Amino acid sequence: MSVTQTSPQLVLHPDRLLPAEPEVRAIARRIHDAVQDLPIISPHGHVDPRLLLDDAPFPDPATLFITPDHYVTRLLHADGVGLDELGVGEGPLDEDRARAVWRRLCEHWHVYRGTPVRYWLEMELADIFGVTQRPSAASADVIYDQVAERLGQDAYRPRALYERFDISVLVTTDDPCDTLADHAALAADPAWSGRVIPAFRPDAYLEAGALGWPDAVRRLGEAADIDTGDFAGYVQALEERRRHFIAHGGRSADHSHPDVRTDPLEPAEAERIHAAALAGEATPEEAVAFRRNMLLEMARMSCDDGLVMTLHPGVRRDHHRPTAERFGRDVGCDIPIRVEFADALRPVLERYGTHPDFHLVAFTLDETVWSRELAPMAGFYPSVYVGVPWWFLDAPDAQRRFRDAVTETAGFSRTSGFVDDTRAFCSIPARHDLSRRIDSGVLARLVAEHRLSEEEAVDTAVDLVTTQPTRVFKL
Amino acid sequence: MSVTQTSPQLVLHPDRLLPAEPEVRAIARRIHDAVQDLPIISPHGHVDPRLLLDDAPFPDPATLFITPDHYVTRLLHADGVGLDELGVGEGPLDEDRARAVWRRLCEHWHVYRGTPVRYWLEMELADIFGVTQRPSAASADVIYDQVAERLGQDAYRPRALYERFDISVLVTTDDPCDTLADHAALAADPAWSGRVIPAFRPDAYLEAGALGWPDAVRRLGEAADIDTGDFAGYVQALEERRRHFIAHGGRSADHSHPDVRTDPLEPAEAERIHAAALAGEATPEEAVAFRRNMLLEMARMSCDDGLVMTLHPGVRRDHHRPTAERFGRDVGCDIPIRVEFADALRPVLERYGTHPDFHLVAFTLDETVWSRELAPMAGFYPSVYVGVPWWFLDAPDAQRRFRDAVTETAGFSRTSGFVDDTRAFCSIPARHDLSRRIDSGVLARLVAEHRLSEEEAVDTAVDLVTTQPTRVFKL
Amino acid sequence: MSVTQTSPQLVLHPDRLLPAEPEVRAIARRIHDAVQDLPIISPHGHVDPRLLLDDAPFPDPATLFITPDHYVTRLLHADGVGLDELGVGEGPLDEDRARAVWRRLCEHWHVYRGTPVRYWLEMELADIFGVTQRPSAASADVIYDQVAERLGQDAYRPRALYERFDISVLVTTDDPCDTLADHAALAADPAWSGRVIPAFRPDAYLEAGALGWPDAVRRLGEAADIDTGDFAGYVQALEERRRHFIAHGGRSADHSHPDVRTDPLEPAEAERIHAAALAGEATPEEAVAFRRNMLLEMARMSCDDGLVMTLHPGVRRDHHRPTAERFGRDVGCDIPIRVEFADALRPVLERYGTHPDFHLVAFTLDETVWSRELAPMAGFYPSVYVGVPWWFLDAPDAQRRFRDAVTETAGFSRTSGFVDDTRAFCSIPARHDLSRRIDSGVLARLVAEHRLSEEEAVDTAVDLVTTQPTRVFKL
Repeated sequence: MSVTQTSPQLVLHPDRLLPAEPEVRAIARRIHDAVQDLPIISPHGHVDPRLLLDDAPFPDPATLFITPDHYVTRLLHADGVGLDELGVGEGPLDEDRARAVWRRLCEHWHVYRGTPVRYWLEMELADIFGVTQRPSAASADVIYDQVAERLGQDAYRPRALYERFDISVLVTTDDPCDTLADHAALAADPAWSGRVIPAFRPDAYLEAGALGWPDAVRRLGEAADIDTGDFAGYVQALEERRRHFIAHGGRSADHSHPDVRTDPLEPAEAERIHAAALAGEATPEEAVAFRRNMLLEMARMSCDDGLVMTLHPGVRRDHHRPTAERFGRDVGCDIPIRVEFADALRPVLERYGTHPDFHLVAFTLDETVWSRELAPMAGFYPSVYVGVPWWFLDAPDAQRRFRDAVTETAGFSRTSGFVDDTRAFCSIPARHDLSRRIDSGVLARLVAEHRLSEEEAVDTAVDLVTTQPTRVFKL
Repeated sequence: MSVTQTSPQLVLHPDRLLPAEPEVRAIARRIHDAVQDLPIISPHGHVDPRLLLDDAPFPDPATLFITPDHYVTRLLHADGVGLDELGVGEGPLDEDRARAVWRRLCEHWHVYRGTPVRYWLEMELADIFGVTQRPSAASADVIYDQVAERLGQDAYRPRALYERFDISVLVTTDDPCDTLADHAALAADPAWSGRVIPAFRPDAYLEAGALGWPDAVRRLGEAADIDTGDFAGYVQALEERRRHFIAHGGRSADHSHPDVRTDPLEPAEAERIHAAALAGEATPEEAVAFRRNMLLEMARMSCDDGLVMTLHPGVRRDHHRPTAERFGRDVGCDIPIRVEFADALRPVLERYGTHPDFHLVAFTLDETVWSRELAPMAGFYPSVYVGVPWWFLDAPDAQRRFRDAVTETAGFSRTSGFVDDTRAFCSIPARHDLSRRIDSGVLARLVAEHRLSEEEAVDTAVDLVTTQPTRVFKL
Repeated sequence: MSVTQTSPQLVLHPDRLLPAEPEVRAIARRIHDAVQDLPIISPHGHVDPRLLLDDAPFPDPATLFITPDHYVTRLLHADGVGLDELGVGEGPLDEDRARAVWRRLCEHWHVYRGTPVRYWLEMELADIFGVTQRPSAASADVIYDQVAERLGQDAYRPRALYERFDISVLVTTDDPCDTLADHAALAADPAWSGRVIPAFRPDAYLEAGALGWPDAVRRLGEAADIDTGDFAGYVQALEERRRHFIAHGGRSADHSHPDVRTDPLEPAEAERIHAAALAGEATPEEAVAFRRNMLLEMARMSCDDGLVMTLHPGVRRDHHRPTAERFGRDVGCDIPIRVEFADALRPVLERYGTHPDFHLVAFTLDETVWSRELAPMAGFYPSVYVGVPWWFLDAPDAQRRFRDAVTETAGFSRTSGFVDDTRAFCSIPARHDLSRRIDSGVLARLVAEHRLSEEEAVDTAVDLVTTQPTRVFKL
């Protein structure tokens, strides 16, 4: 029995993800032709800048595709493969381990049917690594060997891939206390001509009720060289660190809390809770009130310093604490919760919603707010943009639902453009490809239903991957 | 460079909004053929009866299409055009101002891509005014001149358009203290053969916590000639004003509050809060309880006097208060919020849900209640009808989602028929046209999937624009 | 005028419910060919085992199709036909009554347009009873006579139909105090070769605040022969009754409460509330806390004894109490409410979510949780499966929305397989047929969009009706 017989071909169809109806597909194909080769703008993600600074070869296929990527490991875990079997949280894998992890993925390939993970991985394997067989128990070793062999070549090192992927800007997500030395070193490297810029992510410094917050505030003070022992200093230190990010090319500040309420506190009350929380004596309710007031403060700072404010709320992090305790954070057990924007954002929008320099991009994992809250807000406030589908919703049908839910109230011009939000560097082109194909199909249907001319549809598709993200994220 | 070259043609395709798949489209076209020329029944809207009483020419294209219509101004505002630039809230525009406002619309035409506003405006321009160029910076003046020229002709005055639009009944929305003298004068005009009837909208008189409520209650008493200083008189005055509306042809009472709870109060408690609120001493919680009890009272009155009860809840009005303070209400910054019907309406439905004369039509801007709450309720209670998509959801894809979400649980016969809810008189035919096309497409898909015969689909489509709204709204 | 002329033909099109686009339909047809004749697995329903034990002929068409089936009666009630007119709650109907009830259904046939009830009934009439006319006032008596005539034949008695329907296993829903004597007698009958097994449904024994709970607990103690007067005995009695169900082939325990919170109580607190509730002195809050703790206890028992835990939450039962008081429960006035899973299930999943023997199948009538909560949970926890659409959502478009919402996050392997949940025995094949057709169409679209190979799609479709329900429900 030959492997070729048992493992089906892996072929990327040129019309993949385009609508099935022939006339609509033909229109979609023409729209997609206009955008498929445009450079990639990545305004939000989790790639480590060291990856491009060091430009070291990727170690092995399992580490490249599986172990650090919760999008991939979670469905294997659900299908009975322990995270320990996948090497999660254990550091570098030797070849036997890496190959074993890779085999688990290939053996369980069926669990990804109908998911974007399959789409991304197949496109990465085929397009980047020239793999021609679909992953399966039978093809696992052959594919492993082929990918591993390529990973040893210079053409597969991160900088070469950055060029090949045609990325024009890549935004990372960074701790406010980060010196950004890696960003600076990369930018200063004469052999490097790309653009990798940081984003300010202060969540941990705003959650006054979290374990370790006093220590975080102390570190913040050290990084800013400002005494954060009182509220004013704490606020000034955040402002100072934002300036540091801006000096390193930063254009946005990202916020991910359970909710997005922005209720103001009286200054004295903020000062009081700040002190109590530093002493470990704030109640949970006080800590939440403090964070909500700080989110409003961050918007105020955005009006002052111009950083785009992006919101990624509504996730119960580490839903299964035993898993987080054993394997760490971001390993696949974060679960979305219901989220509310209309009342939550009212304080910030009444203050800053028509401020000329304020940009607020609202992402959600709760689809119900797209038509009910986000599109109506983005359709009135010049500062508000609806973030495209993110995380669990970064998928073909969810992206279609997004456009269906948002466009009629907010058009295309009030949406953010695509955000890949990934730490899996090699998945970036596949994720943008998926988004461009879906948007081409969405626009094609509008053309086929005589709601838009084809010329306008092409123009819109190009906007969505060029001027729109550049404008919204101030790139 | 000629304008003809730079501005694309504006053509209304006969198959617009019908499904793209050729066989489904052919069925949809046959269904649509059966309904496209039927008269318009408009059971809920905001046209001023003076428009038809006075029959004065519309002043200019900007005042006709833009300035008073928050559907149109909001996306311009979001795109950076101030409401002051659009003449919002400033009264009559001189020609220069009107032309400048019109130019703003045409220059920003791209923001309406994919929205129903574009659909309505293009259809109004092409069908009513014979415009043949798509709005753009280049075509703005030409179109302005053409529309302005027509507005001076008798054929473009309101009554002539009412005839041309083939409206069989138009329901307005009116204050309970309104004398309805305009309605009476219009009905009494021998030169007028149309039907324009009022709807009773008592929101302001039920919100005991609103600024100015004591004054509203006093005016209510004057209008009814009943002392509203105690609760019994206040209730009697409302009943009296309903009788006044009924005497002027009124068939429905419309209610728009943040929620639709209908919890009863003990009479003594209602009396107590009534007195406290008149004295400006009711708590916010008491005022809300009072309004909820009054919503139940209004249902009781509907059982007694037969007025159809329509609900349009779940909007945070004037979300951006600075805009409302400067430009007034209804200028585009109302934002929907989550709404709950199942528990909220339980008290009213346990009392009156099976009353033979009670009709309750529930509209929503929160799509999540369609399949979860409204369709199950309308599929059991003979009094409950699901209102078709409204406001932000009065749009092609939202209407499809509505039918998909509601039909399988409640069929077609438990839905209200289309409601245009507009103050933009010239948009009425376009809005009904859109709805008829979408319903034709929805029905065509059921036929194509062999879930309904084409004969039944045609019959249903005709019902939805004739017998259904007539029956539901008691017209 | 002949009946044949006035009543249209009833014909089941072989491509019914498949997608309209010709190429997608062709693929769907091939997928459906692979599953349409596979045996029926029914893991959750409400058929009475006596039906098959006694094997008595069905009495008449009205009793077979209408009177006991709230899916059918509710839309007639909404259309003005009183439940008394339909014989609801009044026991056996004589022929005149039965015929009159049947006529009501046929006269109001139009109310079912676009609903799955129509699909099921038409398929039952055509496929099982050979009816060739669509129900209408004109055809009512002819159809009644034809169905009544067949019901007198041996081939239409329950066991013959069970064989003809090709059911491989049928799960009933049973009270914990049930002796299961009917199940035992049926299993012991040498003339019977089918498989009918009970499911443990303890709702009434867990709702400590319900009227009659002390009596229920006493009966539970008698059934288990354990003193349920203290909390430990009460828990032991539930364990004992689960063992009794397991001994009779039971594989699952089903739970339907307003919410699915699983917050633990301290043992002493559980004991205290147990005693208070037995004395009729527990507060509503205590009773709710008690039930939530008991749901956690039931999960603990499932880990111990292996019964699959199924959840059907989020319904306001007997929304219209006057109807329930007059006609009994389950007569069509249950209304879904919003439901929350992510936080509610966190306690149970942190304890048992990765337990190797624990299966938790979560059904919902609140679609919003599919993409937001259930798919993310089922995509991580090996114990969690997303239940397919149920009750109001057991319908073509709802099932498509389900696959669209769930698949991209959880794939197909984390869903439960179809559940008919019916007490209408003859509707079982039609319900499974509908589900298979919809899933074939969903998969065909993935194939047409080049997201899945046709071979994989066929394999998935077969899995979903064979290995998947067998594995999830431990059949």
